[in-house]
Amino acid sequence: MPQFQANKLLEFCTSLIHGAGVPGEEAAIVADVLVDTSLEGLDTHGISRLPIYLTRIQNGRINAMPNIKVEKTAPALANVDGDNGLGQLVAVKSMQAAIDLAKEAGVGMVATKHSNHYGASSYYCKMASAEGMVGMAFTNTPSGIPPWGGRKPYFGTNPIAFGFPGKGQPVVIDMSSSIVARGNIILAAKEGKSIPEGWAIDSAGNTTTDAKAALDGAVLPMAGPKGYAMALAVEVMSGILSGSAYGPRVGWIYDDSTEPVNIGHSFVAINIDKLMPMDEFVNRMDNMVNEIKSAPKAAGVNEIFIPGERRTNKAKKRSQEGIPLNDQLLGELNKLAKEFGINELK
Amino acid sequence: MPQFQANKLLEFCTSLIHGAGVPGEEAAIVADVLVDTSLEGLDTHGISRLPIYLTRIQNGRINAMPNIKVEKTAPALANVDGDNGLGQLVAVKSMQAAIDLAKEAGVGMVATKHSNHYGASSYYCKMASAEGMVGMAFTNTPSGIPPWGGRKPYFGTNPIAFGFPGKGQPVVIDMSSSIVARGNIILAAKEGKSIPEGWAIDSAGNTTTDAKAALDGAVLPMAGPKGYAMALAVEVMSGILSGSAYGPRVGWIYDDSTEPVNIGHSFVAINIDKLMPMDEFVNRMDNMVNEIKSAPKAAGVNEIFIPGERRTNKAKKRSQEGIPLNDQLLGELNKLAKEFGINELK
Repeated sequence: MPQFQANKLLEFCTSLIHGAGVPGEEAAIVADVLVDTSLEGLDTHGISRLPIYLTRIQNGRINAMPNIKVEKTAPALANVDGDNGLGQLVAVKSMQAAIDLAKEAGVGMVATKHSNHYGASSYYCKMASAEGMVGMAFTNTPSGIPPWGGRKPYFGTNPIAFGFPGKGQPVVIDMSSSIVARGNIILAAKEGKSIPEGWAIDSAGNTTTDAKAALDGAVLPMAGPKGYAMALAVEVMSGILSGSAYGPRVGWIYDDSTEPVNIGHSFVAINIDKLMPMDEFVNRMDNMVNEIKSAPKAAGVNEIFIPGERRTNKAKKRSQEGIPLNDQLLGELNKLAKEFGINELK
Repeated sequence: MPQFQANKLLEFCTSLIHGAGVPGEEAAIVADVLVDTSLEGLDTHGISRLPIYLTRIQNGRINAMPNIKVEKTAPALANVDGDNGLGQLVAVKSMQAAIDLAKEAGVGMVATKHSNHYGASSYYCKMASAEGMVGMAFTNTPSGIPPWGGRKPYFGTNPIAFGFPGKGQPVVIDMSSSIVARGNIILAAKEGKSIPEGWAIDSAGNTTTDAKAALDGAVLPMAGPKGYAMALAVEVMSGILSGSAYGPRVGWIYDDSTEPVNIGHSFVAINIDKLMPMDEFVNRMDNMVNEIKSAPKAAGVNEIFIPGERRTNKAKKRSQEGIPLNDQLLGELNKLAKEFGINELK
């Protein structure tokens, strides 16, 4: 698989997004989120999403030049209307607003409506960590999982994410409410393989190991009723509280509808320095991390990882070796490049 | 099993707590949390804890007359030092402080150290909901679950909880990071029963169905690595950020140590009315709840429950029928009553 240096991809993606009509500075923001996500190995949420985003800008389903409105409603609170801009752009502006609020108020929270798929939550949490703050991010997504006891998807795979400053790398936690990404089931169905018991139900609501039947049914929440409760909490924090779509009203960017998907997010930033000296916080984090890393291991385990550590390791590796793009993705990107009169990626 | 009306228990528990040296008004606060929790059927976290709390006040491990200090450090932020008071008292004062901050700032967050076991998180989230706010509560607990890949407990069963105002009842989400309460394994061991695969590991870190071996090992996190990540996030939000004990330093009230357990919590209150009109929020919540309740059900399912709904139903039932107390608990409570010169519960 061809591999590309991150800075080359950043430049290329910025040009592509700009080529689709997004102003240069804003295109660079979106490209940075996508490349950072791919750098960390989360290929499903990074550059691989660019073709559909740009296609949706071209056919008017995503707004290339949104007028993103940040309305401060209290010292620690703001509403954001994303005006149907690219989710990454709307999310960066929203988290920045939360951070700005937290500088004065100690905490900042932003509820964001009229947005789009924002990729990986971890990026926005890292923005807060880089400013010495705890970051939290909530987003809804198109329906994927049923309420516990139901058989039709209602909630999205609704992730919750936290970022905490650490010594060196921040500690980033980013997890969906579903037991597994739907992509794994799609892949199994394509390959004619079965899926593990407990991942999904069929259209009648019975648990199934048949990947095709699972695609007609629903992916199950993580940890059964707990994942359902988590999906609901995230839905309220992102969809209900922001005034965006919620539940099955959230649109899916891959279908042929022309309606905005109207995804909702919320972001929280907590100014640690107003609670304890930053040095003390970082030392406590570092001590905890060291204790976990050196904890007694279960049989057959070589290393205990801190949440987010594998992504950081992957980013180091890919910073040197480059980010792999498969031929199909590369073809799609270069087709768009040609269309926009931009140098192809080689 | 003998059953008692909630108001009678409230009076009795208040007298008992006051009898142990806690001022009357503060005793009433603690009693209200305990009775409300038992009313909702969460017997493991309610009145059943009172004997150990009072015993620990008697032997000086919990402070009957704490000087709880709330220090506002920014418009939306405060530190609380619980001065080793009863966890329920410290938590109520802390959430009240978060609510007060949120009235002006839109959001209020409080990080609390030097506290004790606070019982069920749901009570504090409901305090926020009753004020038209989103409530969040985080607490650490004595070590129970290992980091993923480890074989010794490090994190507590660290719950995360949310409360959202609704039409009629609030929607309350309250879940631990562990796959199951340790109490279930203790019970299985007592009864010589095996436990399901996936609940626990033995002291070597191998998964086990032997309840006794599990007690020498550790309870597993919910959803594998996700529950580990959640436990870590809650540990930072409660233990690290507040300056309290964290990880294995958190004390266990049932052992013979004389050291304060130094549990940490944090609480967040979000003033919904500053984001959207309260009516609109409640209508959106109600619409979501109705959609979930009427969603297509899986085979064999009679009703889909909203998180917290079963507890609310139980509270209605117990409001009429009374709260059952088993003979052992009743005996312990009445022994203390006799000691304090209070009328026994009959």
